Amino acid sequence: MTTRTNVILDCDPGHDDAISIILANSSDKIYIEAITTVAGNVEVEKTTLNAQRICDLLQLKNIPIAMGAERPLVKQSEIAKEIHGDSGLDGPQFPDEPVKKVENIHAADLIIEKVLHSDKPITLVPTGPLTNIALAMIKEPKIVTNIKEIVLMGGGTFGNWTPAAEFNIYVDAEAAKVVFESGVPITMFGLDITHQAQATDSIIEDLATIKNPVAETVVELLNYFKHTYQEYFGFEGAPIHDACTIAYLIEPSIFEFKHVNVAIETKGEYAYGMTCVDLLCVTGQDPNVHFAHVIDQNKFWNLLKRSLSSY
Amino acid sequence: MTTRTNVILDCDPGHDDAISIILANSSDKIYIEAITTVAGNVEVEKTTLNAQRICDLLQLKNIPIAMGAERPLVKQSEIAKEIHGDSGLDGPQFPDEPVKKVENIHAADLIIEKVLHSDKPITLVPTGPLTNIALAMIKEPKIVTNIKEIVLMGGGTFGNWTPAAEFNIYVDAEAAKVVFESGVPITMFGLDITHQAQATDSIIEDLATIKNPVAETVVELLNYFKHTYQEYFGFEGAPIHDACTIAYLIEPSIFEFKHVNVAIETKGEYAYGMTCVDLLCVTGQDPNVHFAHVIDQNKFWNLLKRSLSSY
Amino acid sequence: MTTRTNVILDCDPGHDDAISIILANSSDKIYIEAITTVAGNVEVEKTTLNAQRICDLLQLKNIPIAMGAERPLVKQSEIAKEIHGDSGLDGPQFPDEPVKKVENIHAADLIIEKVLHSDKPITLVPTGPLTNIALAMIKEPKIVTNIKEIVLMGGGTFGNWTPAAEFNIYVDAEAAKVVFESGVPITMFGLDITHQAQATDSIIEDLATIKNPVAETVVELLNYFKHTYQEYFGFEGAPIHDACTIAYLIEPSIFEFKHVNVAIETKGEYAYGMTCVDLLCVTGQDPNVHFAHVIDQNKFWNLLKRSLSSY
Amino acid sequence: MTTRTNVILDCDPGHDDAISIILANSSDKIYIEAITTVAGNVEVEKTTLNAQRICDLLQLKNIPIAMGAERPLVKQSEIAKEIHGDSGLDGPQFPDEPVKKVENIHAADLIIEKVLHSDKPITLVPTGPLTNIALAMIKEPKIVTNIKEIVLMGGGTFGNWTPAAEFNIYVDAEAAKVVFESGVPITMFGLDITHQAQATDSIIEDLATIKNPVAETVVELLNYFKHTYQEYFGFEGAPIHDACTIAYLIEPSIFEFKHVNVAIETKGEYAYGMTCVDLLCVTGQDPNVHFAHVIDQNKFWNLLKRSLSSY
Repeated sequence: MTTRTNVILDCDPGHDDAISIILANSSDKIYIEAITTVAGNVEVEKTTLNAQRICDLLQLKNIPIAMGAERPLVKQSEIAKEIHGDSGLDGPQFPDEPVKKVENIHAADLIIEKVLHSDKPITLVPTGPLTNIALAMIKEPKIVTNIKEIVLMGGGTFGNWTPAAEFNIYVDAEAAKVVFESGVPITMFGLDITHQAQATDSIIEDLATIKNPVAETVVELLNYFKHTYQEYFGFEGAPIHDACTIAYLIEPSIFEFKHVNVAIETKGEYAYGMTCVDLLCVTGQDPNVHFAHVIDQNKFWNLLKRSLSSY
Repeated sequence: MTTRTNVILDCDPGHDDAISIILANSSDKIYIEAITTVAGNVEVEKTTLNAQRICDLLQLKNIPIAMGAERPLVKQSEIAKEIHGDSGLDGPQFPDEPVKKVENIHAADLIIEKVLHSDKPITLVPTGPLTNIALAMIKEPKIVTNIKEIVLMGGGTFGNWTPAAEFNIYVDAEAAKVVFESGVPITMFGLDITHQAQATDSIIEDLATIKNPVAETVVELLNYFKHTYQEYFGFEGAPIHDACTIAYLIEPSIFEFKHVNVAIETKGEYAYGMTCVDLLCVTGQDPNVHFAHVIDQNKFWNLLKRSLSSY
Repeated sequence: MTTRTNVILDCDPGHDDAISIILANSSDKIYIEAITTVAGNVEVEKTTLNAQRICDLLQLKNIPIAMGAERPLVKQSEIAKEIHGDSGLDGPQFPDEPVKKVENIHAADLIIEKVLHSDKPITLVPTGPLTNIALAMIKEPKIVTNIKEIVLMGGGTFGNWTPAAEFNIYVDAEAAKVVFESGVPITMFGLDITHQAQATDSIIEDLATIKNPVAETVVELLNYFKHTYQEYFGFEGAPIHDACTIAYLIEPSIFEFKHVNVAIETKGEYAYGMTCVDLLCVTGQDPNVHFAHVIDQNKFWNLLKRSLSSY
Repeated sequence: MTTRTNVILDCDPGHDDAISIILANSSDKIYIEAITTVAGNVEVEKTTLNAQRICDLLQLKNIPIAMGAERPLVKQSEIAKEIHGDSGLDGPQFPDEPVKKVENIHAADLIIEKVLHSDKPITLVPTGPLTNIALAMIKEPKIVTNIKEIVLMGGGTFGNWTPAAEFNIYVDAEAAKVVFESGVPITMFGLDITHQAQATDSIIEDLATIKNPVAETVVELLNYFKHTYQEYFGFEGAPIHDACTIAYLIEPSIFEFKHVNVAIETKGEYAYGMTCVDLLCVTGQDPNVHFAHVIDQNKFWNLLKRSLSSY
């Protein structure tokens, strides 16, 4: 019998968030307690609608969706329409009205409730700005003792939104500071890794051989995402950033890690939102993060292919 | 018929918070919708207990109390035990176990609920760190349209916790930034004013002529508070900072105001938590605060004396 | 026999700088070693020309003038044309070409040379941004042991260029940080004092009864300066900020002081350039500044009147 | 006839600075106008002594050496004794008293003089903290028009002194800000490149086959430096950071560059001293730096070998 990891997917779908949900749902190693949404790639009403659409695509009826923060803790909102399109999930066609409903509870409160009342520790998987997780920790600090691990996509030793900062952390660096200083074990997939998880033409063509509605939607998502990454960043393919988190939970051996200190820059003029990763161990600070620094790309794409084939 | 102002007292009692509640309760111009508590002068469990004790003293049975944030939004906690004693309300003797109960809802949620569902706009009266108000605004940005005014004690053109920052703002400057940038009209009583509302020996002696349990408790509070202000700050008397907010709501003519821009410093090395008050209008920024700069001390003490005599 | 204080006047004339030089020159308690100039109220070429003009007015032939920094240490330049007019000394008419020449040495180097080679310790009197003094300290740290005192105009517990920062410190807060952390004894005249040294109509009328070219020029300077202070800041009179430094060196009893810690804010978003004056002794840091907090206005104006009458 | 590049080597020797001087001196493409020293790897008296020692080793009699800043512009001093040993040039034995003398002029003044009075534009080659260059620019802004290029070792997209900052920039980030904002063309060799110029055992063994005193000293320097890099950073070899600057001036084709914007972080809590390199062109800011991102290691080591063999 497989022991499942109980996860809450806190996300801002977003193309790679969507693929992350799809990957999680296909694995018998993961039990999705809830999907919570946050403003990030686009506004929270849209990321929530996109979460509903993915649930409809996957016919997920019993997983609660809760809408969360529509703004960062302290700074002004910022979104990434250039990358994900106006809907946040441009590319495929989705029915206008989703069947799946949204719970009448704030994401932060659902996280608090699930974590406080779970028999087994919960793994949080944030793939957007960390606003909901921080809000939950501020409102109910007791939750930290029943969080098994936070497996997140964010940050890196370099940035994509500014030269120093990756989008998810930049959007709400104060929230990131709260989370990274919480004492909860963090496993971090930053741009160093996720830029290696690039879906190139040949990879997308390979995935396109899988014939089922889920795989076909994923291919449409990848084609759109690849296109904006080529245009905006000059990349060859589309990094499926967020899916690294779930890939790790299903098959940890895909990645190698360093246990290091990571501090969040919230004061800087040019480096606001940077995750300062102490790879050379020069700060003398205790490690608080398992920082992924190697990815086995073959294993990663094979996992995704198996997952999509299972639908 | 008097039109009452519907207020939520968001506080961290705290000697002057306690007097503020007592003053509010004695006036037929004020309707207390709720008392919410926050960590500040002491830990939130203690400020909550102190709110209960004051409710017991005043035999307030129907006003809900909700406990709020035990920590600031982003930075580490800080309390002011030196000033308010270990209990936060040192001086008088209170029964160990309060009769008054605390609601099973977070302060921020009670604020959201009250504000969203009130027929008339609500006046928020924060006299501690602004964490609960900020949390409410972050979780439910819609509340800002039904807040009539935020009447707060905090900040000033100089500090008491650092040379630049007053305690309430210093403890959670990020929360203050959220509130001061919210667009809600703010009426601010900073140290410029509250240091003029100093209960000296002669004032306390005068109040001590009032013979009822409430007045006697207030005199005990003032004697303790005066003592720590003398020791710690070298003051002659005890500034009843927080009561200025309620005094204004009862009798606005006690104060004079300037309509100015106030910005919150959250990046500074030495000036973190400063309220930068643009008295000379040099920033070109729009006014967002009615800044109290003159107090009529006679009127203020007479109001307090009338209030205490009414019990 | 009077013991003279040997001073270097490091200034950016500027109306009040000019009056400061005039006051210094009239006293047998002060020996002016040099006048050095800095960008501040206007560009350094203009402040230098203005220093030459004042020397011509006073027929000072033997005091060397050296031109100094045309820009702050780190940040971009900023000037105060609104206050001092385009020439930096608008009001009186001066001959186009000054007789007095400028030395072929940078102000910072002249300061270093004078201080290093003086038998008796030198008092520096900066009444503009502290760029030259900081440059001298950075280039030749040894000078600090032969500086008797730095008597400066700058800062305060409030600002005039921003809500938190006074102009001289704001223009080059990094230089101020170097100077305030140098270990040299500092006597500071900030806005708290200098805004009380306001030349009102009645004071100017009184000075106008003195009939000599120097006094008449001062009256013209004051009339112009009063006008811009009324327009720009809504003041009744013109604060002769800089002259407080020299008044103190001539007649120390005009002022009362507190020995306190002052730190310079160089990181803040809104409080950049603030002098954080620890009047309540809450930082636990050692005092580094004698902070003037009381001025005897009668004595001050009488001194200025006697000085102008002596010409 | 070869056109020589006229350079001022502004350095803090330092093992790699020393090799940089040796490399420069051996090339007929470079004319060394002066060697100026700065506090950095060790105190400025020691870096100056080390410059003298290298001049003695190379029998350089006509190149002026000027000692420069013993402290950074604004922040406190910091040195790197752990890496370069107590003398700053631990490893080889040098005579106690150098023959070569030091000029009686501050480095910043020599830079100003040389640049202002040179017929052809001067190339500055800073391989330590940028204090002297910044001081020169602050004292005499006119120099910028006669600086051909600043070819520097410093910064990178990651750090070695903190997770975000490289040592040279970290020691005086304010000076770096002045230089990077000066408008002078900058060619930058950061850790991204210099960590690839690692002298490993096999490289050092190869160089050890060259039999002359200069080559033998270099091998001793490399052996010591390799040792501390192994101990302190866990590196295989010793990165000869500073020599990349001179290698580029002799043989530009060793490197490939991107023309990008680089901003200096001076406000950050954790990222102070970071060079924020806009490799993805996301800031919209104009390029100010030619950022070396590819090195041809073979060519680099061959150049060094030829250089050492020429002695």
